[in-house]
Amino acid sequence: MGLAATRFLVENGVDVAGAIARRPDKVGRDLGELAGLGRKLGVLVADDADEVLSSAQPDIVLHATRSTMDEISGQLATCVRHGANVLTIAEEALYPWETSPGLAAELDALAREHGVTITGSGHQDATQVGMVIPLLGMAHRITSVHARQTWNADDYGADAVSSKHIGESVEDFTLAANDPDRPPAFGKNILAAVAAASGLTPRKWKSSTTPIVADEDRPSAALGRTLEAGTVIGYSDFEVLETEEGPTFTFEMSGYVYGEGESDVSEWTVTGEPDLYLSNGDVPTAVDTCTQWVNRIPDVLNAEPGFVTVDRLPPLRYRATTFPEIAKLQGAPA
Amino acid sequence: MGLAATRFLVENGVDVAGAIARRPDKVGRDLGELAGLGRKLGVLVADDADEVLSSAQPDIVLHATRSTMDEISGQLATCVRHGANVLTIAEEALYPWETSPGLAAELDALAREHGVTITGSGHQDATQVGMVIPLLGMAHRITSVHARQTWNADDYGADAVSSKHIGESVEDFTLAANDPDRPPAFGKNILAAVAAASGLTPRKWKSSTTPIVADEDRPSAALGRTLEAGTVIGYSDFEVLETEEGPTFTFEMSGYVYGEGESDVSEWTVTGEPDLYLSNGDVPTAVDTCTQWVNRIPDVLNAEPGFVTVDRLPPLRYRATTFPEIAKLQGAPA
Repeated sequence: MGLAATRFLVENGVDVAGAIARRPDKVGRDLGELAGLGRKLGVLVADDADEVLSSAQPDIVLHATRSTMDEISGQLATCVRHGANVLTIAEEALYPWETSPGLAAELDALAREHGVTITGSGHQDATQVGMVIPLLGMAHRITSVHARQTWNADDYGADAVSSKHIGESVEDFTLAANDPDRPPAFGKNILAAVAAASGLTPRKWKSSTTPIVADEDRPSAALGRTLEAGTVIGYSDFEVLETEEGPTFTFEMSGYVYGEGESDVSEWTVTGEPDLYLSNGDVPTAVDTCTQWVNRIPDVLNAEPGFVTVDRLPPLRYRATTFPEIAKLQGAPA
Repeated sequence: MGLAATRFLVENGVDVAGAIARRPDKVGRDLGELAGLGRKLGVLVADDADEVLSSAQPDIVLHATRSTMDEISGQLATCVRHGANVLTIAEEALYPWETSPGLAAELDALAREHGVTITGSGHQDATQVGMVIPLLGMAHRITSVHARQTWNADDYGADAVSSKHIGESVEDFTLAANDPDRPPAFGKNILAAVAAASGLTPRKWKSSTTPIVADEDRPSAALGRTLEAGTVIGYSDFEVLETEEGPTFTFEMSGYVYGEGESDVSEWTVTGEPDLYLSNGDVPTAVDTCTQWVNRIPDVLNAEPGFVTVDRLPPLRYRATTFPEIAKLQGAPA
């Protein structure tokens, strides 16, 4: 993701001050060449975060490592202690106040102390929050909201697909799905952000996972074999939120081996007065994660200090040219 | 529209202070009964705006009369002079700065002088601005944007359909479409709002209208007859905006006698990096005009004085209960 975002940064006039990665095939190489820009940026990838942050003194760190607050909070704290704002695409950081309130509060205090801002953005920013808030604003009364997202398990490697117990029997899948160490699906973070931005108060949460079972033989490119009817071709993670004010939310995230002609679905359906609907069709998830990550930079630079989630930022918007906020930081006329 | 919004107002705890209408079948009757609430509100509809505004002294006027700034500016000024904020659903008021800059500036100055806010909201607020801004914010670079809206001409009466020259020959329609007094389609106001909120600078505008011609016989319920193949069953108004920064916008608004199975389309298609898409399916235009009008009340009460278009307001959001801003105005605890 960092490499994919590099061209977007450079084309928006951002002066990339440093690059941190751990993989040996990246360390020591020039970021511009690694990112496929066809030219050097004069920035060598290094694996010592403290050293890079000390020498580069970045205004903002674009952070992309792992997904949960537990995994990333130490890294975010390191950036903050170096006086850098942080913009992460870790899914839980979109809105960590319900799922990791302790870590979020600690980082919030640390960021305030250092006068910098931490924000989680990425794919969910516009598709799951930014467009959803005004959609709900079209309703007089909401009874229920159903969000549905799909992803094609076949787009990932054999290891990834196997690790999710796709291609196994319903019994084996169900055992694995009940493993308490199974990583979260992050629907709770999305719904919590939407509720907060809509002035709704969470009352009760419920998570569940159901297998998606092949009704006929389904070929899997990732696994290199055909999954027989009756085996698990994927699963749906459901997060249900009941609010004090009445509206109930369901977030359904389904990953499975697509059949012919199937593509990603990203839609929100509102039942209420009136019924409402939003679809983003076949969303370009990987690319729009990077574009939103980069387009959020000016908002984070302008935000108050603390852990400021996107529900408290201005609407994400298009950035046609060099970010004036960046030009200002670099001493150029805005 | 005022009657349709009345229940939404009452259910949100708004104290309706007065009601103004000109039609003799409304004047003198109780608003609650007229709005089908099944009970009186103790508010009699009156036709003297000055008198109602003087005696009711409303905090805000929900205004719904005509569509253009030319038609409504006097009415808005009257409200402002009585110290009332105004929230209108006149289409041009969504963003009048390109189409009626003089009137907008006069009203802006008058509103500042009186310490009140004028805002245009309604159907376009979320569907054409609020959801579109973050959609565009998902792009690194935009080449072109195409908005497409449709409405069924058959939903209106025979007079309305005839007045739009539907059912006529292509020649007759084209003559009428070139009439300089033909009312505007308001795509320009929408695109101007989107451009302003996206930091884009209009460079060139171009409007055009093309007839939609039946390729086979099309029955029209409104006209009570079948329109023969080759006659005009409707038309598309196109507004094209070129911006200084590069992106080109097209707003296509098509009204025609729908065939079997057709329903309203409301979609935005972005060509760029990446390509993006937004659809609101079969939008409930009439109802969502009222719901957005009512849900915008707190934002207008909280806005700075002047003519404040929705691109400068917070994102429209759901209002689950009595508006705290209203409760506060009425002396109740927020």
